[in-house]
Amino acid sequence: MRDFSAGHEALSINTATVRKSLGQDWPLDQIIDACAQRGIRAISPWRDQVAAVGLSAVAQQLKGTGITLSGYCRGGFFPAGDAAGRKAALEDNRRAVDEAKTLGAPCLVLVVGSLPGALAGAPLYTDIARARTEVRDGIAATLEYARSVGMPLAIEPLHPMQAAERACINTMEQALDLCDELDPGCTGALGLAVDAYHVWWDPKLQSQIARAGASRLLAWHVCDWLTPTRDLLNDRGMMGDGVIELKKIRGWMEAAGYRGFAEVEIFSAQDWWLRDGAEVLDTCIARHRSAV
Amino acid sequence: MRDFSAGHEALSINTATVRKSLGQDWPLDQIIDACAQRGIRAISPWRDQVAAVGLSAVAQQLKGTGITLSGYCRGGFFPAGDAAGRKAALEDNRRAVDEAKTLGAPCLVLVVGSLPGALAGAPLYTDIARARTEVRDGIAATLEYARSVGMPLAIEPLHPMQAAERACINTMEQALDLCDELDPGCTGALGLAVDAYHVWWDPKLQSQIARAGASRLLAWHVCDWLTPTRDLLNDRGMMGDGVIELKKIRGWMEAAGYRGFAEVEIFSAQDWWLRDGAEVLDTCIARHRSAV
Repeated sequence: MRDFSAGHEALSINTATVRKSLGQDWPLDQIIDACAQRGIRAISPWRDQVAAVGLSAVAQQLKGTGITLSGYCRGGFFPAGDAAGRKAALEDNRRAVDEAKTLGAPCLVLVVGSLPGALAGAPLYTDIARARTEVRDGIAATLEYARSVGMPLAIEPLHPMQAAERACINTMEQALDLCDELDPGCTGALGLAVDAYHVWWDPKLQSQIARAGASRLLAWHVCDWLTPTRDLLNDRGMMGDGVIELKKIRGWMEAAGYRGFAEVEIFSAQDWWLRDGAEVLDTCIARHRSAV
Repeated sequence: MRDFSAGHEALSINTATVRKSLGQDWPLDQIIDACAQRGIRAISPWRDQVAAVGLSAVAQQLKGTGITLSGYCRGGFFPAGDAAGRKAALEDNRRAVDEAKTLGAPCLVLVVGSLPGALAGAPLYTDIARARTEVRDGIAATLEYARSVGMPLAIEPLHPMQAAERACINTMEQALDLCDELDPGCTGALGLAVDAYHVWWDPKLQSQIARAGASRLLAWHVCDWLTPTRDLLNDRGMMGDGVIELKKIRGWMEAAGYRGFAEVEIFSAQDWWLRDGAEVLDTCIARHRSAV
């Protein structure tokens, strides 16, 4: 297992972690500069943050700073109420693949979606099996294009508390079953983004990480689970402030062959998004060394 | 599949659903009378509600009204920081078994516990595998006593969002693996309380219900999952107001041989607990017929 205590070469910052500084939007170009100043070698940006600065400007800035991507956030949200909606989702995912390619991302992360309309509080249907079928079909179609341009897709199983609104793929086992179906040859074109926050509770976590193996472990996200957790989406904790056994799980990841970045992704409306972004980045570095 | 549309013979009220009326505590003896007036045939009361009225008074009132129990809430919370804590938990579970017996409950529901101290925001350790071992040992010890007095134990797998504080058994599969270990003969002494709110998201739900079979399906709890859900504990919805496919899942339960009550358990600090308890009971009856 790699020793993280002496440096932060393996640290990546998911830029949602610092999308706000002191409660205000922090533009991606400024985030990238702040990361470069601290010797942070990788980030994982979100599409809206990239669009606000401009795709080619971001690509150029990354090149200039030497910062690489640990992933690109995000594709997915395949289910829709009708054929037009599903077609629009596929087109949008194709654009996301292209953007990921332009930015040199190692994978496009997929938050696959679930009951269409649920995110807005008005689900168009409640048949989660149907949503799962639409997700399978959407990934299959996107995979065909992603393969053609050489962009791996990383399915992110989301915590079951997000099963209605954001993702109907909720366990490692379920995601790997889908990988087996759509990429039986384990080519590396399809795999998983393993986010500790979403999967730490899973009694089958260790065995499913081992099952995935290096070719399917495409990304590793860290933060912490707070007790109490006050919000289903935006109350994630800084590594070391909660109950997730991050080092133990990283040990399982590395035993399975994972050698990539540890990407810090913290949604925190009541705490970290209210702090100075510079302080947040410094804390990520310190906790990467002590708690990850 | 049974037809619930014409009556509410199969309805049970978990008394947490009406533990408050208009925001004030509603004593259990008044709840029982209100249920009897409406022809509700079963309830599942909580220990603190029973204690507030008195165990033998409740037993006598139940006998007088002809209301039976669909379960007794609850035993569990086995993990502790030290041997004295674990011993105290076992003694408390033994008392819960005795109370369930006095009240004529068909089973004692177990919310098994998880990281000790986490519920108070100060976990004594974070090793969830250790908590799971302590839970297994605690159930094994309690089962020995419960068998001797003929009180079935119903493990309730809790939603993974409760994995830190309330239960480290989080899927049907995990609970059934434990049943296989501790009661390989499927004697009926150990089984599951299946709460739709906790398990609706599980991609293996149908297969695990079938695996459980009639001898291990000891209770069936219903409410609904709201979009959005504003609180991890106390924002459950009334049946029909959310996205859970209650009829579909009940169909799976009945295909596996379940013929017991549908027990309404709604924790709702911002909605149903603020309403008049009589209105809540009437709504439960109506929704039992239309949505369960």
